[in-house]
Amino acid sequence: MIVQAMDELIRRIRGMRNPSVIGLDTRLEHLPQDFLRDQIPGARTPASVSRALFAFNRALIDALADIVPGVKVQAACYELYGPPGMRAFAKTLAYARKRGLSVIADVKRNDIGSTAEAYADAYLGCAALDGRVYRAFAADFATVTPYLGEDSVAPFVAACAAHGRGAFVLVKTSNPSSGQLQDLLVEGRPLYERVGDLVARWGAQCIGQEGYSAVGAVVGATYPAQAAALRARMPHTFFLVPGYGAQGATGADLAVCFDGRGGGAVINASRSVLCAWQKRPGVPFAQAARQEALRMRDEIASALASAGKALR
Amino acid sequence: MIVQAMDELIRRIRGMRNPSVIGLDTRLEHLPQDFLRDQIPGARTPASVSRALFAFNRALIDALADIVPGVKVQAACYELYGPPGMRAFAKTLAYARKRGLSVIADVKRNDIGSTAEAYADAYLGCAALDGRVYRAFAADFATVTPYLGEDSVAPFVAACAAHGRGAFVLVKTSNPSSGQLQDLLVEGRPLYERVGDLVARWGAQCIGQEGYSAVGAVVGATYPAQAAALRARMPHTFFLVPGYGAQGATGADLAVCFDGRGGGAVINASRSVLCAWQKRPGVPFAQAARQEALRMRDEIASALASAGKALR
Repeated sequence: MIVQAMDELIRRIRGMRNPSVIGLDTRLEHLPQDFLRDQIPGARTPASVSRALFAFNRALIDALADIVPGVKVQAACYELYGPPGMRAFAKTLAYARKRGLSVIADVKRNDIGSTAEAYADAYLGCAALDGRVYRAFAADFATVTPYLGEDSVAPFVAACAAHGRGAFVLVKTSNPSSGQLQDLLVEGRPLYERVGDLVARWGAQCIGQEGYSAVGAVVGATYPAQAAALRARMPHTFFLVPGYGAQGATGADLAVCFDGRGGGAVINASRSVLCAWQKRPGVPFAQAARQEALRMRDEIASALASAGKALR
Repeated sequence: MIVQAMDELIRRIRGMRNPSVIGLDTRLEHLPQDFLRDQIPGARTPASVSRALFAFNRALIDALADIVPGVKVQAACYELYGPPGMRAFAKTLAYARKRGLSVIADVKRNDIGSTAEAYADAYLGCAALDGRVYRAFAADFATVTPYLGEDSVAPFVAACAAHGRGAFVLVKTSNPSSGQLQDLLVEGRPLYERVGDLVARWGAQCIGQEGYSAVGAVVGATYPAQAAALRARMPHTFFLVPGYGAQGATGADLAVCFDGRGGGAVINASRSVLCAWQKRPGVPFAQAARQEALRMRDEIASALASAGKALR
């Protein structure tokens, strides 16, 4: 019996009493100057910068592995540095998994069926070469875009089932213009609800022991009314919730994303943790990130308690 | 004055009298056995397979560079092999540009604003390191998904303007379930039309000398009625048209994607050209690809002539 990544994430959240993941959307400007000088004594090149990004991520993972259940690693920050950047991305995923974290590859990929298969294999499955299996970018979860419809998402769902992984499909995103398409009314209901219903249906075949499907949804905390409506409509869909911290969502905004037992969602914060050292002069960056991650954990717990949804 | 990539593509199409690009969606199974044995004498590893994919692409580019105006390179096929695969992807883009082809990175990327900037810089712009600029994956065009709305597309539009590149935003895709979301009616009109209108608006600020915007649209030839409607609605939006060949669209289906002067669109074919050697026993793969690319060129010309849209 394959253990589902979603069950594993839920158990880690429960064990740590912390429904949050840290977003390693790491950019050069997030690294403290003294760390950068140590890591890159010579010229800044794609290779040297990529090594520094990984070293920063590794230090954060070491500082956070016993208090957060997972990390979300954003691909674009690494793609910016080409193949060496993609190596830093792959090494970050691998190191976080090695340290026992649930790892979300935030790649927002998709394409038509046969190509979607290649993406699903790259992040969730494997390539078979001479009978050996090779995992290109070994994550537990990948984020997926829905615009191409069911046949494009099916390969990710199949990879979830075959390999015990998970996916998070974009439903209602956290950015200012998310409503431009997502809020359009289709037969009197917003498009994101329609997408939410599809995601729930696509995931209905792979509901795990914890009651949530391997196919989750991205639902931004910056639109709490919409998030609350989706939470009610999608009782078996786990939410990955961006928008906390630098994007402005508050504790009360977060609480609506959770089910009545304080489950069903994990909150992501990126910049507020990566750059916590900037607001804590004299504190080493990894320790500052840990302090901020603990503060965030406690803020979510308190928001859940206020909403009568204390984590059990 | 920066020459716009879209102007350049249009001029190459006119010069070669060939409105088609070849899709280098290259997979291991597309490579002839004897070529594979030569290229990979030892074990198949991500590195050796990636080198073979690039060698195959290079041979195709050499065989096609004087008869086709561009190539579309599909990222997923390379991501499947991790960082070495991404190196083969980057080398394919660079080699095709060096041979004078217009190069479309078919990555279907997007994310919220600040992250979309990193994607736009990775494919269309550059990273600045110690005052030097570095292009991670140097393409002329990137394909972009629209589900996150305007603030997610804006960084790509900005990169087009700043660097003279182009983008193709997904509007109506060629796959069987493309209608599941894209055809939903919003105030009596399908969603893809709404997206088409937005794409036209986003691109209105960067219309080139040839009358088409740097911001184009992906419109599948497998839905000819919808493509015809979009062609009429979007007079300044150039179409990248998948669906020909293995996906089943015919010459007549293609003609509706073009404007009255046989312009405004470029047709992509991938598998039918990559795998042309399978239907031409005894013909070397690169020569077979060239024969198929010429056959396709002539078929499009004849379809355009039948529709009274002969290329001028």
